[in-house]
Amino acid sequence: MRLATIIDGDGPVAALVRGDAYLPLAHADGRARSLRELAGAGSPELDRLRTWAESQPDEDFRTLATARLGPVVPDPGAVFAIGLNYAAPGGAHATRPERPYVYGKLPASVGGHGDRLRWDRSLSPNVDAEVELGVVIGARAHAVPVEQAMRHVFGYTCVDDISSRDAWLDGDQWLLGKSMPGFCPVGPSLVTADELDPTRLRLGCTVNGVAIQDGSTDQLRFSIAEVVAFLSAHVPLEPGDIIATGTPARLAGPYPPDRHLEPGDVATVWIEGIGELTTHIA
Amino acid sequence: MRLATIIDGDGPVAALVRGDAYLPLAHADGRARSLRELAGAGSPELDRLRTWAESQPDEDFRTLATARLGPVVPDPGAVFAIGLNYAAPGGAHATRPERPYVYGKLPASVGGHGDRLRWDRSLSPNVDAEVELGVVIGARAHAVPVEQAMRHVFGYTCVDDISSRDAWLDGDQWLLGKSMPGFCPVGPSLVTADELDPTRLRLGCTVNGVAIQDGSTDQLRFSIAEVVAFLSAHVPLEPGDIIATGTPARLAGPYPPDRHLEPGDVATVWIEGIGELTTHIA
Repeated sequence: MRLATIIDGDGPVAALVRGDAYLPLAHADGRARSLRELAGAGSPELDRLRTWAESQPDEDFRTLATARLGPVVPDPGAVFAIGLNYAAPGGAHATRPERPYVYGKLPASVGGHGDRLRWDRSLSPNVDAEVELGVVIGARAHAVPVEQAMRHVFGYTCVDDISSRDAWLDGDQWLLGKSMPGFCPVGPSLVTADELDPTRLRLGCTVNGVAIQDGSTDQLRFSIAEVVAFLSAHVPLEPGDIIATGTPARLAGPYPPDRHLEPGDVATVWIEGIGELTTHIA
Repeated sequence: MRLATIIDGDGPVAALVRGDAYLPLAHADGRARSLRELAGAGSPELDRLRTWAESQPDEDFRTLATARLGPVVPDPGAVFAIGLNYAAPGGAHATRPERPYVYGKLPASVGGHGDRLRWDRSLSPNVDAEVELGVVIGARAHAVPVEQAMRHVFGYTCVDDISSRDAWLDGDQWLLGKSMPGFCPVGPSLVTADELDPTRLRLGCTVNGVAIQDGSTDQLRFSIAEVVAFLSAHVPLEPGDIIATGTPARLAGPYPPDRHLEPGDVATVWIEGIGELTTHIA
């Protein structure tokens, strides 16, 4: 099942996506669902919604192209991210860390596909986009073993881990440099875990169509199950929580490492089987 | 006005505290308030609630001693904390940093006065208590200048910034080592900003009655106004958000630096004019 969060007049609402069209999951009993709520609802409720949606006539579906997409989860309780999680042969971080390297982004920094991003450049002139496979938690996970961790994954989405490269924001603590408003685009949609094998997905990032990252999730140092189990040993993971699972190395290419996001840029992160998530730099 | 969050059968509810008694702020119109809601309500609504509460007969107040106190804000949108924010002559961090040093704790880690704290000691055997003056945000603050920052402070409370000292949790990123469940006791109550001058409050921490910290907020390197303005330049601060403003140095004393919290310990953080916040180590 592919799901998205659509912003309409009444605020964000979860929708089923089918091809170029969507159907708000609000009509089964007349009550709108949020994606966070669906993430915690469990399989029977999801199956019921899926059955209901499949029985709806095509004319009830609306055109996705003209819809405003919100962050897939507009109100996550927490956004975790994992650093140094892609193999980087010969680089500064050539070896796998002993444990997943965990940092946080503020939940309020989430953004949607197509958003315009503006920040105070006097605080941080040097800001980059980074593609990450986003894991959205389903059933609550606390101290779950690796073997059971995947049962707690609701689905997968694209995360753009927009990050300041300025020394003080990229130094000891990363919270502010990764959490300015809109610094966490999430979308465009979510594919539920039953429909996607996350272990060898190509993923990348382009700026103005120029590739700056191109990797595969088969380079992940800590697997999704290992990351979920590790986090859950320390803190409970709740439905709708987002884990950005790390970013592949930047390509040597037409854009050198010191080419950061500039006004007018279009940054797109993409993941095979999920989609493309675009941010317009204002 | 002194406020607390009481956990009763219906969940957490904000209450007015008067001496040894409290009155749930639920009766003015029959609808219970949360402290987060009060923080964002603005002065007229607060004045109305205060007037109503003062008109209630003494017999409607209930005994605080037997109440279960929740975290003053049970559901903050964000918990920020400031590192290295007390003058530490001769120590490893003897100079004031160029900017406030910001990290985050997960909002879900908040706890209440009198809570029992248990964590998996195989993950982190070495855990300490730390007193911090907690600032609770009132009106939303985004890019506010220092001169106006104090208008966005709703009130003050005690925060115990419980922290792992184990190398990997106290190393590069502090999120997990400071966010295990219950690692952020907040309370016992809140004093609204109109009733407390935060600039020279004594504060400290005891373990089993032995003082391990004893300082004064006049040692703060970045004032509350500077911290609020700085954070707000990067991210919007919302009503009910908590800022732990830093912790004074640990005393040389009967408990050496490597004496960490042990089962059976009673850790109390205290701040002049606010109160004592106790945590029982299970």
